[in-house]
Amino acid sequence: MAPLLSDTSKALLSKPVFANIATVNDRCEPQLTPVWIDFEGDDILFNTAEGRTKAVNLRKHPDLAISVVDPADPYNSVLIVRGKAIEITEEGADEHIDALAQKYLGRTPYPFRQPGEKRLKVRVRIERVVSEPSPPSS
Amino acid sequence: MAPLLSDTSKALLSKPVFANIATVNDRCEPQLTPVWIDFEGDDILFNTAEGRTKAVNLRKHPDLAISVVDPADPYNSVLIVRGKAIEITEEGADEHIDALAQKYLGRTPYPFRQPGEKRLKVRVRIERVVSEPSPPSS
Repeated sequence: MAPLLSDTSKALLSKPVFANIATVNDRCEPQLTPVWIDFEGDDILFNTAEGRTKAVNLRKHPDLAISVVDPADPYNSVLIVRGKAIEITEEGADEHIDALAQKYLGRTPYPFRQPGEKRLKVRVRIERVVSEPSPPSS
Repeated sequence: MAPLLSDTSKALLSKPVFANIATVNDRCEPQLTPVWIDFEGDDILFNTAEGRTKAVNLRKHPDLAISVVDPADPYNSVLIVRGKAIEITEEGADEHIDALAQKYLGRTPYPFRQPGEKRLKVRVRIERVVSEPSPPSS
């Protein structure tokens, strides 16, 4: 069974904070991209476009790592997970990037869409929680 | 010849902004850690401790990726590089973590040192600049 996202992790993922996604290419070299992020249940979701390096990498090597550091509290509010991209799909991807634009930019639709671009929604099943945000001290 | 760090990249690396470092383990799985960071000439430097995952990974697989996103300007002030750890050394590592504590915490010596911990300074030679901060618009 996949690890669960803690309430503190969900609270962090609900803020418009950037995540970094690490993937690997065919030569086993790591690649990093800052992304918008959200979650559904205990899966993490992000959005990319057909042809981008991380989509190409993940189709061959589904292993990835995600780091989210809240700039407002970078020593306590840190989520780091390792997992696998279990789904990479066009289905619902346009609605998803619009929802992320609302979350991060406060407006929708997504304003950076390129002509002919095919958006992809990526679902990440967490395999290991390396670090999660501390509960607020009372 | 290694790519040079632009003035905008050096300006970003001079701010107390967290970096994410991606390395790979023996199974070619990516791992991510937020770190303090600085630079020397056109090399990027960070600090870790003997036995940490990224030190273990980098001794076997020197390839890594680094992402630095300025939370104050996350759409323009982004540095992403790929490179290699060309040196992992105890020499100067204690002074280096103290200097980083001054940069990030405004005080020195480094307050989180563990008993018996051996600090390591890692020098990264950049091989490819994937993204660098835009110059300020005039």
